[in-house]
Amino acid sequence: MSRSEEVELTNMCMISDGKGNVLVQNKIGNADWSGWNFPGGHVEKGEYITPSVIREIREETGLTIEKPRFCGIKEFHKLKDGKRYIVFLYAAEKFSGELKSSEEGEIFWFPLSELIKSDKLIDGFGDMLSVFTDENISEVFYERTEEELKTVFI
Amino acid sequence: MSRSEEVELTNMCMISDGKGNVLVQNKIGNADWSGWNFPGGHVEKGEYITPSVIREIREETGLTIEKPRFCGIKEFHKLKDGKRYIVFLYAAEKFSGELKSSEEGEIFWFPLSELIKSDKLIDGFGDMLSVFTDENISEVFYERTEEELKTVFI
Repeated sequence: MSRSEEVELTNMCMISDGKGNVLVQNKIGNADWSGWNFPGGHVEKGEYITPSVIREIREETGLTIEKPRFCGIKEFHKLKDGKRYIVFLYAAEKFSGELKSSEEGEIFWFPLSELIKSDKLIDGFGDMLSVFTDENISEVFYERTEEELKTVFI
Repeated sequence: MSRSEEVELTNMCMISDGKGNVLVQNKIGNADWSGWNFPGGHVEKGEYITPSVIREIREETGLTIEKPRFCGIKEFHKLKDGKRYIVFLYAAEKFSGELKSSEEGEIFWFPLSELIKSDKLIDGFGDMLSVFTDENISEVFYERTEEELKTVFI
C-alpha cells in the first residue's frame, strides 16, 4: 500500500549578522502574500531540502550560507485542495558573498528585536518567527474548526 | 502550476532517560528492514508531523512524550519509483506512562554510548544517529552515482 501523499515543500532562512540584525525580504507577491518575510522558496523535485535552502538564499540574497541549522517547521493544509504544505525553517550565521536583491523582493538588514513590532510583516510571519527564535518550539500548524483557525505551537 | 510532489512522510524519536540510556526498538520488519532502531512510523494523511511522532511513540512504547524537539531529517529518493522519502527526527527527554512493547518490536533501554558499536543496528541507523546527536548536522541524504551511493551530512 502506498503511504505517500502530495506535498508542497518549501524553505525559509533567518540569516543573522551577529550584531542583532537579520536579513529581511520585502516580498513582491500577490495581494495575499506580500510584505516583509525571510528569503526562501520551493524545494525542486529531486533536490534535497537543505541544499534547496542554500540555493534559494543564493538566488534571492546573493549570499552563500554555510551550515544552515534546522529550527523547525510550519505546516498547513491548503484550503483549496487540502494538500499538505510544509515550510522547513532554518537559521544561518555564517555566509559569504555580496548582498544583492532579486526580483522576488528587496533585501535588507533589520534589527531582530524590532521585527515583530513591524506592521509590514507578511501574513503568518509572526508565527514563524516564534519557531525561528524559540528553541522550545519545533512546529507551528493550524487547526481549522467551524468557528476559527487555531494556531498551535508544539 | 502545481509545485507539489508525492512524498512519504515518517518520523522517528530518540527518547533519553537522563541517565545515558535511550529507548531502542528491535524492529520486526522484512529481511531488509529489521534490527535495532528508534521507535517511529508513518505520518498519516491529514495528521500534522509533530503530533504524529507523539502518537507513534505512544503506540510503540506505551510512553507519552512531552515537547519532542526537532533534530533534523533523513531523506532519500526510493530506488523503485524515485519518490521522496523523509524521516523527521526528534529527541525527547520528558515522558510519562509505562513502558510496553508493541507488535512492531521489543522496546528496551540501552546506553547511547554503546549503541553505535552494536552489530544489530538496522540498515542506515548509524547515519541517523549522527543527526540525532550532533547539533551541527541538520540532515543526512544519499547521492546515487553510477559507482556508489554517497552519504552526505549537511
